[in-house]
Amino acid sequence: MKSSIITIGDEILIGQIVDTNSAWLGQELTGLGIEVDTIYSIADTEKAIVDTLDLAIEGSDLILITGGLGPTKDDVTKHSLNKYFNSDTYFDESLYNKIAAYFNMRGLPITDYLKEQCKMPEKAEILTNNVGTAPGMLFKHKGKIIVSMPGVPHEMKWIFEKSLKPNLDKYLKLEYIICQQTIKTVGIGETLIATMIEDVLHEMPDNISVAYLPGTGQVRIRLLSKTLVDNTEAIDHHAKKITDILEHRVFGYGTIALEEAVRDLFIKKGLTLSTAESCTGGYLAHRITSTSGSSAYYMGSFITYDNSFKQRFLNVSENTLKEHGAVSEATVKEMLEGLLQQTGTNIGVSISGIAGPNGGTEDKPVGTIWLAYGSKSDIRTKKLQLGKGREKNIEYTAVTALNMLRLFVGEG
Amino acid sequence: MKSSIITIGDEILIGQIVDTNSAWLGQELTGLGIEVDTIYSIADTEKAIVDTLDLAIEGSDLILITGGLGPTKDDVTKHSLNKYFNSDTYFDESLYNKIAAYFNMRGLPITDYLKEQCKMPEKAEILTNNVGTAPGMLFKHKGKIIVSMPGVPHEMKWIFEKSLKPNLDKYLKLEYIICQQTIKTVGIGETLIATMIEDVLHEMPDNISVAYLPGTGQVRIRLLSKTLVDNTEAIDHHAKKITDILEHRVFGYGTIALEEAVRDLFIKKGLTLSTAESCTGGYLAHRITSTSGSSAYYMGSFITYDNSFKQRFLNVSENTLKEHGAVSEATVKEMLEGLLQQTGTNIGVSISGIAGPNGGTEDKPVGTIWLAYGSKSDIRTKKLQLGKGREKNIEYTAVTALNMLRLFVGEG
Repeated sequence: MKSSIITIGDEILIGQIVDTNSAWLGQELTGLGIEVDTIYSIADTEKAIVDTLDLAIEGSDLILITGGLGPTKDDVTKHSLNKYFNSDTYFDESLYNKIAAYFNMRGLPITDYLKEQCKMPEKAEILTNNVGTAPGMLFKHKGKIIVSMPGVPHEMKWIFEKSLKPNLDKYLKLEYIICQQTIKTVGIGETLIATMIEDVLHEMPDNISVAYLPGTGQVRIRLLSKTLVDNTEAIDHHAKKITDILEHRVFGYGTIALEEAVRDLFIKKGLTLSTAESCTGGYLAHRITSTSGSSAYYMGSFITYDNSFKQRFLNVSENTLKEHGAVSEATVKEMLEGLLQQTGTNIGVSISGIAGPNGGTEDKPVGTIWLAYGSKSDIRTKKLQLGKGREKNIEYTAVTALNMLRLFVGEG
Repeated sequence: MKSSIITIGDEILIGQIVDTNSAWLGQELTGLGIEVDTIYSIADTEKAIVDTLDLAIEGSDLILITGGLGPTKDDVTKHSLNKYFNSDTYFDESLYNKIAAYFNMRGLPITDYLKEQCKMPEKAEILTNNVGTAPGMLFKHKGKIIVSMPGVPHEMKWIFEKSLKPNLDKYLKLEYIICQQTIKTVGIGETLIATMIEDVLHEMPDNISVAYLPGTGQVRIRLLSKTLVDNTEAIDHHAKKITDILEHRVFGYGTIALEEAVRDLFIKKGLTLSTAESCTGGYLAHRITSTSGSSAYYMGSFITYDNSFKQRFLNVSENTLKEHGAVSEATVKEMLEGLLQQTGTNIGVSISGIAGPNGGTEDKPVGTIWLAYGSKSDIRTKKLQLGKGREKNIEYTAVTALNMLRLFVGEG
C-alpha cells in the first residue's frame, strides 16, 4: 500500500511558505500503515498537475492532493482534475445552500467565485468541509484513489480527519501495521552512537529499520517496522537494548523535549532552579520557559551580559574578573555562588563565554565557554570549546547546560 | 532556467520533520531568477534517488539535492550518485586531514564511518563545508548541474551560500538580471499595508512584482524584477514611495533584523538598555543578544519568572501584586521602575503576561500581556490581547517590545 502527496502552489516553490501539510499527512498516513512514496510540490498549472498525476498514479494506490482549491481565480486544481478524469460538472445545490447560509449569517456578499466553486465534478464523491467553503473530492481511477483537498491547513486536516479517514477502509485494503519508537539522546554524537550500538544493529531483524536524526547536541534514533502483525514487542525490545548501552545519554522516548525531561525531573524531586547567563543572553531561560508548566520549578534568571552586572548582582569580585577574565572557571563559579545566595533556589547554572563571531583572543578563542552548575554544597564546572558560529554556540551551550542539570539532579 | 529540489529522507515522508530546506532553497533560487519547477521529497533508497534524478534532469537545468549525506550507514545518496554518474571514488586525503584535525581538537575518536565519508566521487567537484563533516558535491551531466548537500539545515545553507552561490555563474548561464528590494515593516498587518500602498502598486510597471512575506508581527514587502537590463533604479524609486507612505512602520531594507535596527539606533544615540521579563522568560533578551555587537548597548536582564523575584529583585510591592495581579499595568510599571533604579541603564522594558496555554482567567484570558517601556522620566505602557498559542505569544510580545523601544528611542 503506497501513497503520494501532491502539494500545489507557487508559494511553496518560491519558499514563501513552508509546506507543513505534507508533514502532517505523512504522519497520518504512516500511522495508518500506508507508506508515503513521494511528496511532490508543484506549480499551479494544468500541465504540472496532469504530469504529476500520471507519475503518482503509476506508483501509488492513494494520492492526496492539497492546494489550488478555493474561491479565487487560481482554482486550477478542480479544472485540471475534471479534464484528467474526463468528468463533466454539475451545480451542487446543497453545497450552494450551505455556503450561502454561512455567508448570509456573517453578512458577507455571495460572489460569482463562490457560485463557480459549487460546480462539482460528476465523477467525484464530495468530502464534506465544515470549516471552509471548498469541499474535498474523491476520484476512483484504475483501482487507485485520488483525493483533492484545499491547501488551508485547518480545512485540509478537518476533511482528512472527519470525511476521509473514517471511511478509508471502504476504498483501500490497509495491509501493514507500522510500529515505531524514537530514542532521544543528548551529549553524544551520531558516529559514536553508531559505533556503540553496532552489535545491536547487527542482530536486529531486517524488518526493523534504523535512522539517526541529528539536532544540535542531540540525536534521535528511530526504530521503525512495517509488518503484517503487530511488531511493538520487538521494537521495544531493541529500543531497550540500545538504551542499556547508551545509558544516561538517553533522556526519553517519542516526542519529549530535553527541557520537558528536565522539568519533569525537577518537579519529581521537588527542586527549584535559577540561572545566570552571560554569552547565551537569555536563550537558556527561553528554552526552559518554552515548555508549559516550567513555572512549577523555574524561578528566574540574571542575564549579566555586562561585566558590571556580574559584580553588582551576582557578587563576582573585581579581582576575579581582572585576574581570570569574565570567561573563566573562577568567574562562573562565583556567578553560581552569587546566584544561589541571591535566589535561594536549590539548584543553579551559570554560563560565561565567547559566543562569537568576534571577541576571541589567542588564549580564549571564539567558542570558549565555561559553565558552572550544581547546588551550594556541590558546585561543578565544565568547559566547552566550540566553533565560530554564534547561533550554534549559543544553542549548543544551552543544550549542554540542560543536560548537565539533568545529570546532576538525576544522580541524587 | 529551471531548477528542481530533491530532499531525501524517510523522516520527511513520515512527517517526523518538516522540510524547511526546500523553502529556504526556493527563496534563494527565486532570488537568483531561477524558477523552481518541482520539489520532490523521496525515500533514501537507490531506486527512488535514481528514478527522481531521471525526472528532474529531464525538466531542469539545476538540481539541488539535500539529505542522505552523513557519517552513518544510511549514507545512501553518495552511493546512488556514484552509480548514477558511473563514478569511481577516491580517498580524499585533505578532507580526512581536515575532519581528523577537527575531531582531535575536540578529543573525539575517529571512527571507520568518518573514514568512509572521505571517499569522494571522482567525477564530482567538492563543495567545501566548514560547519560539518560532509562536503557538498557538484556533478555536471548532459549540460545540467546536479548538486548534493547534507540535510542538516545550517550545513546545507553554509555550502549553498559560501561554496555554491558565488560560483554559480561559472556553471549556469543566468540570463536575466534579478533586481530586488525588500522593505521590512513591523507593527502593521499585510491587508492594511496592501490598502495603504494600493496607488503605488497601480502605477508600478508590470515588470516589477510585489510579494508580502508575513512573519510574527512583521511583514516584508518584496519588490522583484527579472529583466534583461538593470532595473535597480525603478525598484528603488518605488521602494522609496512605499516607505514614504508607511513611514515609521518601515525599520529597514534587505536582510536587516529588527533587533539589528534597534541595536544600531541605541549605539548611534549612545544609550544603554536593560530588560525585565516574566512571561517571555528570556526570549526578548535572547533576541537582543542574538545579534553580534549587542554588548555595546545591552547590559542585561532580570528574568523574574516567579513573583517573589519581582518583589525581591525589582522592588515590586506586595500590595501591587495583591491588588492588581502580576499581569497588570501597575506591576509592569513597578518592574520597569525597579529595573531602571537597579541597573542604571538609560532605557528599559518590562513584560508580564499569560503566555498560555494555561493560566488564564475570565478577566485576564490567555494572551493578556502588559509591557512598560521608556526611561525614568517617561514610562509608557502597552497592553496586548493575543491568542492561545504559547510560542506565538512569546514571539509576538518580544517583537512588540523591540518595536516599542525602536519607536521610543527614535523619537528623541
